Amino acid sequence: MSTVLEQELVGLDQILGAAELIAPYAVRTQLLASPWPGLWLKPENLQPIGAFKIRGAVTAISRLDPTVRGRGVIAHSSGNHAQAVAFTARAFGIDAHIVIPDNASPRKVQATRDLGATVELVPFGQRFSRPTELVEHTGRAMIPPFDHPDVIAGQGTVGLEIAQDAADVEVVLVPVSGGGLISGVAAAITALLPHAKVIGVEPELAGDAAASFRSGRRTAWSPADTARTMADGLRAFSVGELPWRHIRAQVHDIITVSEDEIADATRRLILEARLVAEPSGAVATAAYLHHRDQLPSGRTVAVVSGGNIDPAVLRALMADV
Amino acid sequence: MSTVLEQELVGLDQILGAAELIAPYAVRTQLLASPWPGLWLKPENLQPIGAFKIRGAVTAISRLDPTVRGRGVIAHSSGNHAQAVAFTARAFGIDAHIVIPDNASPRKVQATRDLGATVELVPFGQRFSRPTELVEHTGRAMIPPFDHPDVIAGQGTVGLEIAQDAADVEVVLVPVSGGGLISGVAAAITALLPHAKVIGVEPELAGDAAASFRSGRRTAWSPADTARTMADGLRAFSVGELPWRHIRAQVHDIITVSEDEIADATRRLILEARLVAEPSGAVATAAYLHHRDQLPSGRTVAVVSGGNIDPAVLRALMADV
Repeated sequence: MSTVLEQELVGLDQILGAAELIAPYAVRTQLLASPWPGLWLKPENLQPIGAFKIRGAVTAISRLDPTVRGRGVIAHSSGNHAQAVAFTARAFGIDAHIVIPDNASPRKVQATRDLGATVELVPFGQRFSRPTELVEHTGRAMIPPFDHPDVIAGQGTVGLEIAQDAADVEVVLVPVSGGGLISGVAAAITALLPHAKVIGVEPELAGDAAASFRSGRRTAWSPADTARTMADGLRAFSVGELPWRHIRAQVHDIITVSEDEIADATRRLILEARLVAEPSGAVATAAYLHHRDQLPSGRTVAVVSGGNIDPAVLRALMADV
Repeated sequence: MSTVLEQELVGLDQILGAAELIAPYAVRTQLLASPWPGLWLKPENLQPIGAFKIRGAVTAISRLDPTVRGRGVIAHSSGNHAQAVAFTARAFGIDAHIVIPDNASPRKVQATRDLGATVELVPFGQRFSRPTELVEHTGRAMIPPFDHPDVIAGQGTVGLEIAQDAADVEVVLVPVSGGGLISGVAAAITALLPHAKVIGVEPELAGDAAASFRSGRRTAWSPADTARTMADGLRAFSVGELPWRHIRAQVHDIITVSEDEIADATRRLILEARLVAEPSGAVATAAYLHHRDQLPSGRTVAVVSGGNIDPAVLRALMADV
């Protein structure tokens, strides 16, 4: 059964192809020794839009048929995927129409507009229906945030680079939300370093993927539940269908971290590693700092997936140092 | 006259030698495109101790006679040089005795102690006499913060890497305090990219090097004057004698930036480039953001020299965003 599933998973050739496509746009981020012995950091916060999402967006938009791509693209997101699609559309000289729920952070909305995208704010309940409607009316392509093989292949370049730069890595810690990043990383690591273990990390307060992993059944949490975490990039209330198949086949474990642990890791990344992480970007580091007992031993890499922190959050994190 | 002076300057061979010595200890930092068109960043804040100073300390300590080195080393510093010497001494398995003025930031004192060094706090007036006394009593070597050819050669590896990674660079912006960093960078750039211009940047409130450059005479400012800037790493009240010779021969200009401009650049590096810079580390970026009219045109690199920011300063910078 596992073999049948794996036939449908993203493969190394797709990830190698994505690496060529993204080279002109994304940074091949440098693996950095962390201040914490045994841990290396993959600083995706240093990408042009401050998050790994640029990898998947560039891959997916590059692979569109040129005629379709010329019409422009549509995406829905309240966070870094919006900026990734806007950035890529600008680079390709095409239009991007981004649907954002009207409760999103004004700073992220502005950042998306600053990249030249048309931003449409909609009530939370229309965040999926409105983009579908737009696709039907305009013939434009939708660039999904995680549930697509091209997006997963693009995010998989993170894992490819880790394998290239640290062939002796034993453990790779990856934030989980919709599951696009961990799927791509697991696909690359499984192909290149089959002895290494890919482990997902999630906020306890948005722990749907960990619960799904334990039960073996893809489970959704309510948006009201997942909204409780400060890690605003990890509030997807379920992993995607294609990511779920990767997670079942190639991910070793998914563990959760508390809000205090996320805050501590974010603060220590800033003050001790001098990397600006957003809380969502710090969960993998939080797992290493606070849950070593749940992790296999050996050289470990934590993906610092993004750095678009709200100034008020950053200020609060510095209040009790 | 310039020819006679240049004979005594640090040369490319010394910098290439330093590059080999530091490779096991320092990060070969990645040149990053900044969010500001035309500007690239050299993120020395990502070094293990959060500053370029590790390059000079490793070079100088590596080049000591092993018998002398075995006795341990002495340094005086209120900032990043203290941590650089402590880090290097620990790596070599030798003792470090660091003299720090008793008005230094408690966080930097603690960071130096955490690296295993013996820290001796002395009244500000004894910050030079006490280390000299220690050298005489112990036979240990002093590792000077900037006024030494090995230290300059080590810092010069920053310029070497910039030249290797961006052969088309036209302008390199470098913070100036005692002048070790800009001297090494200027030596490397002059040798490898003779068309490019190295420009120093200093806080207006600690503008002794800019004043010296204008007048052609090395001028000291009072510690009370230079202490006014928030850029606590740039409060040296005069450039060193050997750095001064490099500056006269190989530096194109030295310009100054205001406290508001330093604060703005620090904030924008954090929020837009996701790099934690300390104010001293942000002055070169401040020059690019606020003084383009004083700079030659063309591809520009700003050295982000350090990231050891005080949490209270970081909190204050986020107060009015």
